[in-house]
Amino acid sequence: MGGDLGPAEVVAAVQLVLADAAMDPVTLVGDEAVLRPLLAAAGLADNPRVSIHHASEVITMEDKPLQALKRKKDSSMVRAIDLVKTGAARVTISCGNTGALMAGSTLRLRMMEGVERPALAAVIPREGGHFILIDAGANPEPRPEHLVHNAILGANYAKVILGVANPRVGLISIGTEEGKGNTLTTETNDRLKRINGIINYVGPVEGFQVFRDTVDVIVCDGFVGNTLLKTWESLAKFITSLLKQELKANPLRMGGAVLAKGAFDALKSRMNPDRYGGAPLLGVRGNILKAHGSSNRHALASAIRAAAKIIHQDLYQHTESDVARANALLAAPAPVATPAS
Amino acid sequence: MGGDLGPAEVVAAVQLVLADAAMDPVTLVGDEAVLRPLLAAAGLADNPRVSIHHASEVITMEDKPLQALKRKKDSSMVRAIDLVKTGAARVTISCGNTGALMAGSTLRLRMMEGVERPALAAVIPREGGHFILIDAGANPEPRPEHLVHNAILGANYAKVILGVANPRVGLISIGTEEGKGNTLTTETNDRLKRINGIINYVGPVEGFQVFRDTVDVIVCDGFVGNTLLKTWESLAKFITSLLKQELKANPLRMGGAVLAKGAFDALKSRMNPDRYGGAPLLGVRGNILKAHGSSNRHALASAIRAAAKIIHQDLYQHTESDVARANALLAAPAPVATPAS
Repeated sequence: MGGDLGPAEVVAAVQLVLADAAMDPVTLVGDEAVLRPLLAAAGLADNPRVSIHHASEVITMEDKPLQALKRKKDSSMVRAIDLVKTGAARVTISCGNTGALMAGSTLRLRMMEGVERPALAAVIPREGGHFILIDAGANPEPRPEHLVHNAILGANYAKVILGVANPRVGLISIGTEEGKGNTLTTETNDRLKRINGIINYVGPVEGFQVFRDTVDVIVCDGFVGNTLLKTWESLAKFITSLLKQELKANPLRMGGAVLAKGAFDALKSRMNPDRYGGAPLLGVRGNILKAHGSSNRHALASAIRAAAKIIHQDLYQHTESDVARANALLAAPAPVATPAS
Repeated sequence: MGGDLGPAEVVAAVQLVLADAAMDPVTLVGDEAVLRPLLAAAGLADNPRVSIHHASEVITMEDKPLQALKRKKDSSMVRAIDLVKTGAARVTISCGNTGALMAGSTLRLRMMEGVERPALAAVIPREGGHFILIDAGANPEPRPEHLVHNAILGANYAKVILGVANPRVGLISIGTEEGKGNTLTTETNDRLKRINGIINYVGPVEGFQVFRDTVDVIVCDGFVGNTLLKTWESLAKFITSLLKQELKANPLRMGGAVLAKGAFDALKSRMNPDRYGGAPLLGVRGNILKAHGSSNRHALASAIRAAAKIIHQDLYQHTESDVARANALLAAPAPVATPAS
């Protein structure tokens, strides 16, 4: 029912995206009595590309995921996931409770063929573009196979959403020499090297390379990914707040800040992840996109456009086929190293 | 022999700290033929508080730690560690090869009583002050007991270096509710709650709390800590470089930037970790401080002052005593939860 800003913001986003005549039809899932007047007010009442799928309940941010999924069968989230399950929708976007969306999608849709665990992907700005961080928190204790699948899920998502033909995939580690890192990264690195060709694996990357133009996809476990994302947000806010304090310290600096305001605005906009509007939950059997709870109409419109790309570029089929090839390669006996004669 | 800037910078740092009459005597470990003229040039040749301990070799940044330690027995690093081992020095500072310093200290000094693995601590600026991040990379695959020891090592270091009487200790996790996180954080959390009182454990903290004034010590495994530190540095550089680009985009902004220059300089200085000058390697049997390879005289002077605090406030004895108490508590049978009658 629309995240922190409510359903009116969702309707405004639909209005924005439908200005594009090529946009796919959109179904709003939620309380019809609330949605119908909002659509009418937006001049969308008779638009053949908008429909309402009624749901009488809402899972809130405070709800415990598993309990809410069990008790609120007629919630907008459960109904929207089920639209993907039945094929009535090809992708679902939610800005609701992340835990409930992950659990609900995994339980109701089950997994993509060959994949064992879901992964959340996030699009992050860096020098010269953006990268995909996967996993941003769906699976905090993965096995190496899970990270191999994440690499494939992330690479395919990078092709679709960043438009990079052959995305460079790196595994986050604490040193790029062989043997550095921990058991998980060492075993994952071995497997990723074996499936090179299916993805463009460039090897382990260290933290200081993350915001440089080194790789397009960064693979990590969900514990590390979630911690990185949250601390990055925290650090960016801290730097901004320090800079604001310093700029207000005397009239000279304040005058300078007024003149340079355009630079600060531009910086804010470049750091803003709204452009990519959502974090897909990859690896489940169907397309699910998580938008931020505080998404405004522009962020939601970006999410809807991202969802359309996911469909049109057939993300799901391409990913599933790469996973099948990788699993077959990894199931074959590992090559034995022989000294050059 | 002085990191990237060479031994002259170390001598300059010694000159700075010895201006304080209360500063302890300093021994320079390295090539006497190089150091003696530098001391003379700095007017320190006859200063009774400076001495030279000759060492003919140098472990370089490119050396492989274990190999270098084995082959270069007369290196300044090995000699300086041995001064702590024999009690000739109470603390050693190095801005050399981190891997060699960690391995050399662990192998030559062995561990503090009751501690199994060393940990690197880092001092990081945040809103309203600084926090200690431990472990910054010494132990990438710890067991819960190791993190419990890290909490004690970090809390004692926070008392000495941040001057906080009862530092708040948090365990980094991906949700603050019970059961969130992974096996390592769940098991560590259980143990930390049991030793509460020995340290001031406030519970799990999430990434977005890290740069707020929430805790004084953040405990994490060495893989997470090393990755966080390196990505934070990378992100701060990225934000700075974006801002510079934007400020240069037109003459108006450039004028503003000139007026506001003081604010940018102040921000840089507040983000600068030089003030705390070093990352201690905690948990080994003796005091070892790692300074950044690129340390200038001011950073090195801060490290020497930090080293003096470590001695005067008896960091080692306090820590060892807390570890013994915690180990005794954890060795006792775990309390059984009983419902209130």
